[in-house]
Amino acid sequence: MKALRKTRPERGAQLESVSIPAIAPDEVLVRVRAASICGTDLHIYDWDPWSASRIHPPMTFGHEFCGTVEKIGAEVTTVAEGDFVSAEMHVNCGHCHQCRVGQPHICQNLRIIGIDLDGCFAEFVRIPARNIWKIDPAIPEHYAAILDPLGNAVHTVLAGEIAAQRVAVTGCGPIGLMAIAVAKACGCSTLFATEVNPHRLELARKMGADEALNPKEIDVVKRVREATGGTGVDVLLEMSGHPTAIRQGLQMLRAGGRASLLGIPGQPVTLDLLSEVIFKGATIQGIFGRKMFETWVQMTALLRDRRLNLEPLFGEQLPLSSFPQAFELLLSGQAGKVLFYPNGIPREG
Amino acid sequence: MKALRKTRPERGAQLESVSIPAIAPDEVLVRVRAASICGTDLHIYDWDPWSASRIHPPMTFGHEFCGTVEKIGAEVTTVAEGDFVSAEMHVNCGHCHQCRVGQPHICQNLRIIGIDLDGCFAEFVRIPARNIWKIDPAIPEHYAAILDPLGNAVHTVLAGEIAAQRVAVTGCGPIGLMAIAVAKACGCSTLFATEVNPHRLELARKMGADEALNPKEIDVVKRVREATGGTGVDVLLEMSGHPTAIRQGLQMLRAGGRASLLGIPGQPVTLDLLSEVIFKGATIQGIFGRKMFETWVQMTALLRDRRLNLEPLFGEQLPLSSFPQAFELLLSGQAGKVLFYPNGIPREG
Amino acid sequence: MKALRKTRPERGAQLESVSIPAIAPDEVLVRVRAASICGTDLHIYDWDPWSASRIHPPMTFGHEFCGTVEKIGAEVTTVAEGDFVSAEMHVNCGHCHQCRVGQPHICQNLRIIGIDLDGCFAEFVRIPARNIWKIDPAIPEHYAAILDPLGNAVHTVLAGEIAAQRVAVTGCGPIGLMAIAVAKACGCSTLFATEVNPHRLELARKMGADEALNPKEIDVVKRVREATGGTGVDVLLEMSGHPTAIRQGLQMLRAGGRASLLGIPGQPVTLDLLSEVIFKGATIQGIFGRKMFETWVQMTALLRDRRLNLEPLFGEQLPLSSFPQAFELLLSGQAGKVLFYPNGIPREG
Amino acid sequence: MKALRKTRPERGAQLESVSIPAIAPDEVLVRVRAASICGTDLHIYDWDPWSASRIHPPMTFGHEFCGTVEKIGAEVTTVAEGDFVSAEMHVNCGHCHQCRVGQPHICQNLRIIGIDLDGCFAEFVRIPARNIWKIDPAIPEHYAAILDPLGNAVHTVLAGEIAAQRVAVTGCGPIGLMAIAVAKACGCSTLFATEVNPHRLELARKMGADEALNPKEIDVVKRVREATGGTGVDVLLEMSGHPTAIRQGLQMLRAGGRASLLGIPGQPVTLDLLSEVIFKGATIQGIFGRKMFETWVQMTALLRDRRLNLEPLFGEQLPLSSFPQAFELLLSGQAGKVLFYPNGIPREG
Repeated sequence: MKALRKTRPERGAQLESVSIPAIAPDEVLVRVRAASICGTDLHIYDWDPWSASRIHPPMTFGHEFCGTVEKIGAEVTTVAEGDFVSAEMHVNCGHCHQCRVGQPHICQNLRIIGIDLDGCFAEFVRIPARNIWKIDPAIPEHYAAILDPLGNAVHTVLAGEIAAQRVAVTGCGPIGLMAIAVAKACGCSTLFATEVNPHRLELARKMGADEALNPKEIDVVKRVREATGGTGVDVLLEMSGHPTAIRQGLQMLRAGGRASLLGIPGQPVTLDLLSEVIFKGATIQGIFGRKMFETWVQMTALLRDRRLNLEPLFGEQLPLSSFPQAFELLLSGQAGKVLFYPNGIPREG
Repeated sequence: MKALRKTRPERGAQLESVSIPAIAPDEVLVRVRAASICGTDLHIYDWDPWSASRIHPPMTFGHEFCGTVEKIGAEVTTVAEGDFVSAEMHVNCGHCHQCRVGQPHICQNLRIIGIDLDGCFAEFVRIPARNIWKIDPAIPEHYAAILDPLGNAVHTVLAGEIAAQRVAVTGCGPIGLMAIAVAKACGCSTLFATEVNPHRLELARKMGADEALNPKEIDVVKRVREATGGTGVDVLLEMSGHPTAIRQGLQMLRAGGRASLLGIPGQPVTLDLLSEVIFKGATIQGIFGRKMFETWVQMTALLRDRRLNLEPLFGEQLPLSSFPQAFELLLSGQAGKVLFYPNGIPREG
Repeated sequence: MKALRKTRPERGAQLESVSIPAIAPDEVLVRVRAASICGTDLHIYDWDPWSASRIHPPMTFGHEFCGTVEKIGAEVTTVAEGDFVSAEMHVNCGHCHQCRVGQPHICQNLRIIGIDLDGCFAEFVRIPARNIWKIDPAIPEHYAAILDPLGNAVHTVLAGEIAAQRVAVTGCGPIGLMAIAVAKACGCSTLFATEVNPHRLELARKMGADEALNPKEIDVVKRVREATGGTGVDVLLEMSGHPTAIRQGLQMLRAGGRASLLGIPGQPVTLDLLSEVIFKGATIQGIFGRKMFETWVQMTALLRDRRLNLEPLFGEQLPLSSFPQAFELLLSGQAGKVLFYPNGIPREG
Repeated sequence: MKALRKTRPERGAQLESVSIPAIAPDEVLVRVRAASICGTDLHIYDWDPWSASRIHPPMTFGHEFCGTVEKIGAEVTTVAEGDFVSAEMHVNCGHCHQCRVGQPHICQNLRIIGIDLDGCFAEFVRIPARNIWKIDPAIPEHYAAILDPLGNAVHTVLAGEIAAQRVAVTGCGPIGLMAIAVAKACGCSTLFATEVNPHRLELARKMGADEALNPKEIDVVKRVREATGGTGVDVLLEMSGHPTAIRQGLQMLRAGGRASLLGIPGQPVTLDLLSEVIFKGATIQGIFGRKMFETWVQMTALLRDRRLNLEPLFGEQLPLSSFPQAFELLLSGQAGKVLFYPNGIPREG
């Protein structure tokens, strides 16, 4: 089969022919319909220091996808050939402390398909049966391809109360934009989005932000404080990972508020813990992955009920062979979610 | 001033002229614009056994209203003459165990304006300053008149997770109908409403119920179980107080689900605690009043953001003098929320 | 091997020679050191209506035990031969809604070893590897034999706040008595125990109850209300399943309190929902089994730290062949926890 | 009366004769029996930059105390002359967002008696009636004098689950030491304390720490990780405010753990948010003051039940006039809690 692989410890990727993966008795082979490119894939393509330390070529990358079950292992009973599926690509060990106390998403021995194991930028991908998520037929294919990042957004938004809460979203990349849609769908009150990229600010408005603010142009903390009668927002959803945005977000947060941090800082961050956390009695939550499988249940409900319009997020639909174009587009910062179709692009896509 | 009063321990009410209430230094006098009739007021009018044991004539009843501040006491700083306000009519003592641990809504020494103290079916009503709630100007007057029951609905819906949850609402009186609107506004998934009155079932659909079911016509438990793949709903909002509906609601609830009970049973209720609560690991919450003032903050946000369309709920707008017509209409079960205008009906009402 | 079995649908049991169970690749064979008799086993022995409807002879019963691993299946990596272990005897399906949202203890397809599958009143018992719980070496053997009911107690006590809370325990059978010890170990404040059996009341005092009250002798609700300044207790741990005790417990509970129900009512229970739950804003929790495996982590910590003195609970130590004596002792209501030693009684036991 | 006052913007304090405070109708005058010196008082005495920016001389400082009610205002009904009392010295406004949603301890307009208003280092202190806390007669006088810092400790420990949890306490000043006692009293599992001062480490052991570790001598993170099987602690109670201790504490914390921060950093703190918070799915809570009045209820229960032995914490008992000795002792870092007795030292103290 064709697979997009990282074969050498350097920038770029290679489209190769490799064997279709063999599956164990508790595994499933999935024929990939659509796969989406994550920011992490850009890092792997670009071979940044994180990639160099974590990725071991040769390997196939990609971890956002949907497809149909091609074959099931001998012990598999919960999914059948032909089922339309996606998968939780974080594979937990099942026996560490976190796995035993109901927190498998922060397993101590987590392996990630597409990072530690061969991923979905290929015609077929091998998945443990218990990680398979069957997709409700009401959910369109292109939405099914991005459940992994949508799950990040849903996990972040629903990590605490959201209905009737005033919200700030700092950082409007794809997951930040999805978080805006999710928060509005769940009854949040005034939502302030901050972002330095004007194109993304415009998307933030389309996704439902009440105010989309550019910190390069105005004092966003002052504006949010004013607009909330001096109190600040009840909830911060931090999706940028940028130290300045994190600090601004915490300054916007009201005393007693909740800050949920999903964005990935590239370096240690200096915080005024005293004023912004301790004296405020604030709660800061680290958010990682998706709850297994509460988050999947939640996002299935939101999508099936047509609560989320994610159309503005989508960009090009390409064959795997167009990968150089796909990555360069995304690295330019101008594209929406780009989808690969390793087994062919659907006619009406 | 004119006031609708219960002057004798018997069915009915009397419209009388009484003195405008004098206020204490920490109290406020409010000129009533619109007052709404609650089911409790029907009991008082009808003089049922509960009323006979609780109400001490002569007194003015009514506890749902909005109005403008006419006069403030010498110590009052948080509200000014002319402000458009409503009020939390449950007056807590401030020093019992519950008041001291952040649960003033279940104060041990609670007094209720319109039941224990003279109420709002009058041109003016006297309110402790700390019970006053200033109304956001974006909220229309007729909505402002029903914040008390809307608060019951918001308190019930938001007493646990609601986004992406499957919900059953048993009982579609005014508060049940409001709960449907609130749950949908807060991102709930499939919502099943049950009710024996066909008119109310129709309203349930208008308010957003996905399925409005009549237990006289179908096996509602079976239908809800089928529609949820055998699992049941995640959340029960019990708004009827009827023993059969309570039992059906619990049978619809999934293992691990949440049942929030607001409806007032007229008698002890026999429950299959073992199957419906214990073996299910279910959580049952008693809901009373409104959280002071979290619920008020929440409903203000929902209304200001125009998340709730409550128009289908409203019925007649009448002067106080039409009280016999108002009560008979409501006792017939056919009317929506009837509003009194003690100081005159607005032209464009 | 020798096994105590229910071979016929009638009162009693039979000690038989049967084959040692064969294990699947993901299972473990455990040599039973000590097994404890649960109230459920008495029902099975006595062949009450519940047993007649649920138990399918021939089968080996018993579900509280500890032992050493004799043999592991080919795929098992988390436990080794010779390990000292107990097990969660509730076997969840892994794929129903509850299993997927982190509530496997209330799995829709739960099977129980010793009820639905052959149990531990035998020299050997077969257990799925993921249900095995390795026992900290600091925990004595006889304590290790009763982790199943201790887990019920820990699950009930820690289902909400307990430190500095006033507590009522209604029903002082073995699990109620353990709950007293657990609640005191976790910093509860005044603990009231109610029980009609004087011997058990005496044990309640030994386990740490501040007041052990007999509802046959005094008005327990009045006493608890008086002793709490009229407020009531913050937490009710209902361990009896008796309708009167459940009602008394709820009457003792303060407005805003938590009632956790573990005791198994033999019939529907009539409750004054209005006064005792709804107007009180109380929370009622059904408790079933043990959280998998949060509860096991918690009880391991409590036992390893020697926080619990359970010695007063233990009764006779007997070989399997003395089963008639064991069951008659327990059915008389006078015995503590009776332990079977299917592979021989330890010298210094 | 005699009062210890800050009369000039410079190091030191002055013992002066001033008028006994006049009280408003909703206030209480308390005759101070014992007052305790807080770290904040040392800052005020020492006139550090924080003091210079916050304190406005002339004023009487001191905010930890107990005493007897000397006189009550005309409207006061909840406390009587002669009552033995302490007080919550944080005076909330009652009408900001936080006050209205049940979080008065983080009021936006908070004033602190002893900082913003005249404090308790005097023969008498004036307190709003609703801030008065009546002391259970079972609580000894010297314990009653330190409820303010004990409340900080209780608030921190009980801000999440504690029973059966492994705990790290970083920083063993008086509040850290109290937190150790509280955590153990509430059933925590292994407790690791870290502190650089050997005298305080010794006290940490006396208060119940299982391991008292000096970061100057060993790699405390490595030790805690080893002792927890590589997992880390479930709960971090950060009581030092020191950046290194905060970072070490977070490194000790397990994925999914809770970090409650009470210690006051003197400057911004640089954190590895990605590894220690985000990827870990950790929760960080800022802790400020005491919950009003949940914390007071909790600490009353713990003290009345004699769950806490705080004796090792106490140091000298002095008249107000010995204030130079008291402050120099404390600034040397060697003393325990020093108590002033403005109305005379009790004979058997």
